[in-house]
Amino acid sequence: MGDANSFGKYFRWTTFGESHGVALGVVIDGCPAGVIVSADLLAENLKRRRPGQNDASGEVLVSARNEEDEVQIVSGIYSGKTLGTPIACLIYNKDQRSQDYEDIKKQPRIGHADDVWQKKFSHADHRGGGRSSARETVARVVAGSFAQMFLQSLYPDLRVLSFVNRIGPIELSEEERSHVLDQPIDAYIARFPTQKSQDVLALLKSAKETGDSYGGSIETWVDGVPVGWGEPVFDKLKARLAYAMMGIGATCGFEIGAGNALIDKKGSDIHTDATSSIYGGIRGGISTGERVHFCVSFKPTSTIKEEALKGRHDPCVLPRAVSVVEAMTWATLADMALAARLSRALDR
Amino acid sequence: MGDANSFGKYFRWTTFGESHGVALGVVIDGCPAGVIVSADLLAENLKRRRPGQNDASGEVLVSARNEEDEVQIVSGIYSGKTLGTPIACLIYNKDQRSQDYEDIKKQPRIGHADDVWQKKFSHADHRGGGRSSARETVARVVAGSFAQMFLQSLYPDLRVLSFVNRIGPIELSEEERSHVLDQPIDAYIARFPTQKSQDVLALLKSAKETGDSYGGSIETWVDGVPVGWGEPVFDKLKARLAYAMMGIGATCGFEIGAGNALIDKKGSDIHTDATSSIYGGIRGGISTGERVHFCVSFKPTSTIKEEALKGRHDPCVLPRAVSVVEAMTWATLADMALAARLSRALDR
Amino acid sequence: MGDANSFGKYFRWTTFGESHGVALGVVIDGCPAGVIVSADLLAENLKRRRPGQNDASGEVLVSARNEEDEVQIVSGIYSGKTLGTPIACLIYNKDQRSQDYEDIKKQPRIGHADDVWQKKFSHADHRGGGRSSARETVARVVAGSFAQMFLQSLYPDLRVLSFVNRIGPIELSEEERSHVLDQPIDAYIARFPTQKSQDVLALLKSAKETGDSYGGSIETWVDGVPVGWGEPVFDKLKARLAYAMMGIGATCGFEIGAGNALIDKKGSDIHTDATSSIYGGIRGGISTGERVHFCVSFKPTSTIKEEALKGRHDPCVLPRAVSVVEAMTWATLADMALAARLSRALDR
Amino acid sequence: MGDANSFGKYFRWTTFGESHGVALGVVIDGCPAGVIVSADLLAENLKRRRPGQNDASGEVLVSARNEEDEVQIVSGIYSGKTLGTPIACLIYNKDQRSQDYEDIKKQPRIGHADDVWQKKFSHADHRGGGRSSARETVARVVAGSFAQMFLQSLYPDLRVLSFVNRIGPIELSEEERSHVLDQPIDAYIARFPTQKSQDVLALLKSAKETGDSYGGSIETWVDGVPVGWGEPVFDKLKARLAYAMMGIGATCGFEIGAGNALIDKKGSDIHTDATSSIYGGIRGGISTGERVHFCVSFKPTSTIKEEALKGRHDPCVLPRAVSVVEAMTWATLADMALAARLSRALDR
Repeated sequence: MGDANSFGKYFRWTTFGESHGVALGVVIDGCPAGVIVSADLLAENLKRRRPGQNDASGEVLVSARNEEDEVQIVSGIYSGKTLGTPIACLIYNKDQRSQDYEDIKKQPRIGHADDVWQKKFSHADHRGGGRSSARETVARVVAGSFAQMFLQSLYPDLRVLSFVNRIGPIELSEEERSHVLDQPIDAYIARFPTQKSQDVLALLKSAKETGDSYGGSIETWVDGVPVGWGEPVFDKLKARLAYAMMGIGATCGFEIGAGNALIDKKGSDIHTDATSSIYGGIRGGISTGERVHFCVSFKPTSTIKEEALKGRHDPCVLPRAVSVVEAMTWATLADMALAARLSRALDR
Repeated sequence: MGDANSFGKYFRWTTFGESHGVALGVVIDGCPAGVIVSADLLAENLKRRRPGQNDASGEVLVSARNEEDEVQIVSGIYSGKTLGTPIACLIYNKDQRSQDYEDIKKQPRIGHADDVWQKKFSHADHRGGGRSSARETVARVVAGSFAQMFLQSLYPDLRVLSFVNRIGPIELSEEERSHVLDQPIDAYIARFPTQKSQDVLALLKSAKETGDSYGGSIETWVDGVPVGWGEPVFDKLKARLAYAMMGIGATCGFEIGAGNALIDKKGSDIHTDATSSIYGGIRGGISTGERVHFCVSFKPTSTIKEEALKGRHDPCVLPRAVSVVEAMTWATLADMALAARLSRALDR
Repeated sequence: MGDANSFGKYFRWTTFGESHGVALGVVIDGCPAGVIVSADLLAENLKRRRPGQNDASGEVLVSARNEEDEVQIVSGIYSGKTLGTPIACLIYNKDQRSQDYEDIKKQPRIGHADDVWQKKFSHADHRGGGRSSARETVARVVAGSFAQMFLQSLYPDLRVLSFVNRIGPIELSEEERSHVLDQPIDAYIARFPTQKSQDVLALLKSAKETGDSYGGSIETWVDGVPVGWGEPVFDKLKARLAYAMMGIGATCGFEIGAGNALIDKKGSDIHTDATSSIYGGIRGGISTGERVHFCVSFKPTSTIKEEALKGRHDPCVLPRAVSVVEAMTWATLADMALAARLSRALDR
Repeated sequence: MGDANSFGKYFRWTTFGESHGVALGVVIDGCPAGVIVSADLLAENLKRRRPGQNDASGEVLVSARNEEDEVQIVSGIYSGKTLGTPIACLIYNKDQRSQDYEDIKKQPRIGHADDVWQKKFSHADHRGGGRSSARETVARVVAGSFAQMFLQSLYPDLRVLSFVNRIGPIELSEEERSHVLDQPIDAYIARFPTQKSQDVLALLKSAKETGDSYGGSIETWVDGVPVGWGEPVFDKLKARLAYAMMGIGATCGFEIGAGNALIDKKGSDIHTDATSSIYGGIRGGISTGERVHFCVSFKPTSTIKEEALKGRHDPCVLPRAVSVVEAMTWATLADMALAARLSRALDR
């Protein structure tokens, strides 16, 4: 309501569409003019949202509804560049299968939001979760891709890298973590760059078969952020990232820099090195020029046995969520980059 | 910049004031008319922001600058009730001591934001941190108090309770946690309702003496929240709470409901009880009517030896932060309560 | 940029689409759930935006590009009622004819915004004016129709009536004005409810032939507005109406109530009757419960001789603008109606 | 409510204070850092808001309550320059005289907003109009002064000039209008740069004696506006100016450029000169680099006989409103200047 389907104040975009409606989409108002649009980047990011294409996890992670997402750009682009006018994109739903959900209509799905949604709005669309479906995130990936095009046209070295660092009981070792930058993340099962790939696959397979699920954690590293992004006192960069991440379904925790691990330390342990990465590249809510890094934790997915039996069950949302976390990071950074333009007195 | 010093979209307030300037303050635009104003509640909440009044930790936790905060209400109130016009409040700085900070001016304080602030704005006020000082939170407590008055006039049973559940190595036991509701939180050392009070006191005393500091975690329980607060898809209640909390200085993590502990579980472990408290009273981003609960972790405070030696050093921000966490919770809820008014089609 | 393509704070909608691009459209975020959607009302309002269907002015007022506008509702509706989620609507461009505009590309069109648009954005779409084309208003009519559905579900007696009261030298007489409410406005040539229809037709025909154009004035009456709409101090109802109207292309003046005619009077002339219509049903920026009325003046349309010769020239924008003025009025009222919900302290 | 007491999206400020409360004030969030603050400019603009200091109209135009307005700057300034943090300013009410208004309390004042205000908010402050008093504009002049300091630091040649061009029956001749730029506007009676000063004085004196009042019109010229200010499609520069002006009390009309006079012309009359001033320096909603000019009309002030008898009656609001119109113009331009920063793709 109001503007709760809009993200950002300056690089501002609004998503729309129900999971089993005609289409999903996004309108981006605030992307500056003259940005070169890369259809390839857009397609690549959307493909990454559908996991399991390139590895052995395909059969496990991919739900029956694995349609390829084709984006129709409806406005805001001319001769391959942004016009500075609203960019509207649509992704039509091809495989709606709302029939599958007719039975579900009768009973609120455990762990889903159907019942509270009904109470809040009185009138609700139960087919596949409506707006609370994970399908809604396709629009976020589109918006994040434009944010990426915009930012990388100005800051060619700016990089956002997200990866799974934990699924259920399996965690990345420190050794593995230290090699992440050199890894082809997408080539790993579940975007989890670990030597224990076979364990991961076995874990997920077993969960798929029993209709069970696992949570986990996604870590994000942003390199190349200039000094000065983040707006005191309420739009601190860490606050805006937390808002972006906790606005993704199934998230249950957010940590900036060393996060909760900082509680185990005394001030004297950590303040010896002011430029250490312990604060996640942010001080006073403002980026310091160091790597911005943070972790987002996800609860195990909600499941209905029947749904699982029909094969439309993801035993773990994390692999798919990696591209959504990246998209929301790009979108947050694009907003903060534009916000920073407003601070400089002597600029025109 | 822009509106980064404003919080909320509907119950909207803007804070102002530098730590060593003339005054701090807040303007609240969006508090409905007719709310009975309680000067006592306001004074009580502000007093609670200055910890150590009622217990043995007073000498340890209270920094030299422990002035009582007197609020001057400048507008928006008439005959003891809100007018529906902006409520402006000022808290004048009595004890400015900017002299103490003159030496500091030369060197950026470790862990503080002085240097990035300078780079971002070019022109900065180094005296005591300016807007990045903890002193800025006094304005948040004022705003939160009005949010509380507004909400409790409509929902008399709505309660926000925050308490420290961990300081450095000392943690609340499950047994202790189960009795929290019956405890006089403010009477405990550091608002940490534990039997190990003497250990806590010893820990803080030692840190004070050595100029060291501890982080920790604050837990919040909200009872009496009606169904339907939180606005999909970006203004999920958990997202707005995360934004509010991570906008407080020194925070480094946010968890909703069982938080990171959910990663240790399988879906089948937790989905047996849809109404369990494991999700923190929120599903699909919308309050379910159950207790809303969340945790915020804080890093150890930044310190300068010299500052510590002058006795102006807090070995732990958490006791003081409890009232700030409560204030930001009230403010977030007030905003969500007003947002929820907009959803109902058939209301006038 | 930012949110300049969004209208309203609560009943908030964003338009997109270039005149010669793929489609135009709008996303409405903030329409409450449960509003019954009338496809007929939507079609009727869109048809009214294309003037000259029902009268002798058809041949004169209708430009060659008179395609029927078909709306595709993409989201936000289920079982005939709004879901409280964003309502996205598209109107595909069938008859793009951008070829016609290739020549124009070379020279900025007199009175059009092509050159300043180019300077502002560096990269621009010259085909048919891009976003500065009158075609953009089709999205406004869609948004206004939903605002109307929402408001009339709550206030069945609320009525917005706009009509042309002057075209060039021909003006409505006081006698004619007094009968407006009983008139079938749409049946009159150019929505100008005058006995001098033949004069109007002759005037427009002559202008069409010579490639000339006339301005004029549109008057709007809103009956059934409850007391209390309009938000002091900046969102006065008259300020928001002025903003809405002056945001329509070709407008050059706005008057509330008796408007400029009030300058001819002394205070003692008009203050004898506090409830008179002289203030346009607004005092202190707040609706009084009386008829809200205002006038908007339009400059003569910009023209290029060559364009006129191709028959794509409207000698007068006013007939078409009537439905746009009505749409922007509905949209403004819907926003103010929702805003008023926030003021009441004792409502939940 | 919400943010209806805030003006601007980027150069954003919030006013507060009741006419007979403790103080009036403003908080500006969004003024860039490093702007040199001129206390003299601030004082000068506030002095200009109290008319009749320098000319023979003093005795006539100055109401009994003619206190000098002293501004206390509470935050946001350090070493004479803005910090980029919120700038809070207070103007304490010295001469409250709320007693005078006790009698008035019983009866709604004719033409005032007391009754609708009461109905809207249920609880209202009747003393002197509360927030609907002209006294509220003092905060606007403060905000406008900071907007002026900001803009003139970047655009030294930017000038805003407002003057009265009509009071009741007396109008500026074309000859007089052509000399306005060379005139010391403030030195003229009622800021009305006419040879007929004696007639103006006589008119106002007579109105003062009989408790009557006159309306009129204020014209504004802005020179030095760069190309590219104004944001399509809803935040057209003309729309934002109309919003700003119609948000001033007692305004009843707004015209951009030649305004309503354009209706008397045919398209062929005016389109011969694309760069003519006829459009008021705005095309497509965007500034063209030419002079921006517009007119605002004011109705005769509302009066109560008893109030007039006590000598607290202004027979004409226009002289005082000139500085308010200028302030709102500066504020609108500052917002548009910052908005324009967001459009440029290749800027950092």
